[in-house]
Amino acid sequence: MALQIFGVPGLPEIVPGSDLAAMIATAAADACTPLADGDVVVVTSKIVSKAEGRTVELADVQPSQFAIDWSLPWDKDPAVTELVLRESKRVVRQVGPILITETHHGFVCANSGLDQSSSGAHGRVVLLPLDPDASARRIRVGLQAAGIDAAVIISDTFGRAWREGQTDIAIGVAGIQPILSYIGQVDPHGHEFKVQAICTADELTGAAELVKGNTSRVPVGVVRGFEFELDDTAVIAPVLRDQSRDLFR
Amino acid sequence: MALQIFGVPGLPEIVPGSDLAAMIATAAADACTPLADGDVVVVTSKIVSKAEGRTVELADVQPSQFAIDWSLPWDKDPAVTELVLRESKRVVRQVGPILITETHHGFVCANSGLDQSSSGAHGRVVLLPLDPDASARRIRVGLQAAGIDAAVIISDTFGRAWREGQTDIAIGVAGIQPILSYIGQVDPHGHEFKVQAICTADELTGAAELVKGNTSRVPVGVVRGFEFELDDTAVIAPVLRDQSRDLFR
Repeated sequence: MALQIFGVPGLPEIVPGSDLAAMIATAAADACTPLADGDVVVVTSKIVSKAEGRTVELADVQPSQFAIDWSLPWDKDPAVTELVLRESKRVVRQVGPILITETHHGFVCANSGLDQSSSGAHGRVVLLPLDPDASARRIRVGLQAAGIDAAVIISDTFGRAWREGQTDIAIGVAGIQPILSYIGQVDPHGHEFKVQAICTADELTGAAELVKGNTSRVPVGVVRGFEFELDDTAVIAPVLRDQSRDLFR
Repeated sequence: MALQIFGVPGLPEIVPGSDLAAMIATAAADACTPLADGDVVVVTSKIVSKAEGRTVELADVQPSQFAIDWSLPWDKDPAVTELVLRESKRVVRQVGPILITETHHGFVCANSGLDQSSSGAHGRVVLLPLDPDASARRIRVGLQAAGIDAAVIISDTFGRAWREGQTDIAIGVAGIQPILSYIGQVDPHGHEFKVQAICTADELTGAAELVKGNTSRVPVGVVRGFEFELDDTAVIAPVLRDQSRDLFR
C-alpha cells in the first residue's frame, strides 16, 4: 500500500460564509489533482473558523479583572487572555506567561487554540470552530454534492507535554474513525498486541502538514491511498481522554 | 510538493548482528521500490533492538523487592517491572497498574518502551535501543555504502498525555533535523508566526506508520519527496523537553 500526499494550493481568500467544500474541490481540480473517492481531505481549522465567522476584533473584547491582572506582568494583551479564558472550561496550567487550558470541546492546548498569527489583521484573532466534527461533516457533505465521497479531518497545530516542536493533530472528523483498534488481535507468535489502538487521524493530519506547511499558505492537504472504511458515525470524541483516565491534567 | 509513502516488505527475520541497512536496501529493491537519495527511511525500533541484541530473557532477571511488591496486586510479571525500572532514570507516574517513566535517553513513555509483544518468544522482551541516534547513523552510513544518501529515523509507538490512541514518533535521527523552525519568519500580514517550530520528524514517523501498520509486520516505511537538507549534525535531543520547561512531569 503506497500513499500519496499533496497540498491543495490556490484557494481564494476565505470570508464568512465561504463554501469551503466547493472551493477545495475547484482548487484541487484547477491544480490538476482533482479529489477522488476515498481521499482523506485535511483542512486547517483556521480557514474553517474564518468561513464560520469565528473571528473576534480585540477592540470589542472587555477583559475581566483577572485577565487584566495576569496579563500585565507578562506583557500580554488582556483582550487575548479574556478570549482564552472564555474559550476554555478550565485552566490546566498557568505558569509564568504560559496558559494551557481545556477548551469547551475538551482539547488540552495552549491559549484555547486562539490564533493571532493569520487573521488577516493585527487586532483580530481566530477562535477554534465551535463544533469541528460538524465543520468536517459540512465539508464532507459539500464534497459529496460535488460527486466526491471523501473523508474530512479538521486540523490544528498543538504542542505536546514532553516533546518540543508542535505537530498537527485532528480536532474534528467526518467519514473516518479517528482510532484504529487492534484490541483482541494477536501477532504471529500468538501474543496479544501491546499497542492496542493507533490514532491514525492524528498520523494522517501530521502527514498532511508536511505538504501544507505553516508558511506556504496551503491550508488543505490530501492523503490518497489510505485504506479505511467510510463511516458516518465517526466523531473525534474517542480521542479525547476522559479525565478519569488522565494522569497529567 | 507531493509525497509518496511506501512500506518495505519482505525483510528477513532479524537476529543479533543483522545488517539492517543492507537488508532494507535489498528488500526495497526486491519490492520494485529501490531507495533513492533524499528518502526518509523510518525504521521501527523493535528490529533495531533485535539487531543490536537488546532483548532480555525474563527468566534471567532478578526482580527487586520493590518490583515484586508493586507487581503482585496488578498481576504483572515482576521481571518486567524490574526491567522497566532499570531502563528508567525515574518514575513519572505510578498510578494503579500504569507505570510511566523517563528513560535513560529522556523519553517519557509507558513501561520505558519495553515491548513484550513481538520478541519472537513469550518469555523475552525487547528494550529500546541504547542510543537510537547512533542506531540511525549506522543505518544511514550503511545505506550510503550501498550508494543511497537517505535520512534515517528510528520510530517507536508512544501514548500521549491527553489523547487516546498511540502514534509513532521519532526516537532517533540521522541526516535530518527533527524540528523545522519558523522563528523570526513572518506571515504575509507581517505578523510573526505563532507556531514557531514543527516537529517534522514526528510527523514523518507518524506518516510512515500509516503504511507500516502494527499488524502487517512491515517494520520500515519510506517517505519520498519531502524537502529537507541532509544534515549530519542532527540528533533527537532538541525534541526532548528540558525538565525546566516541562509543566507536566
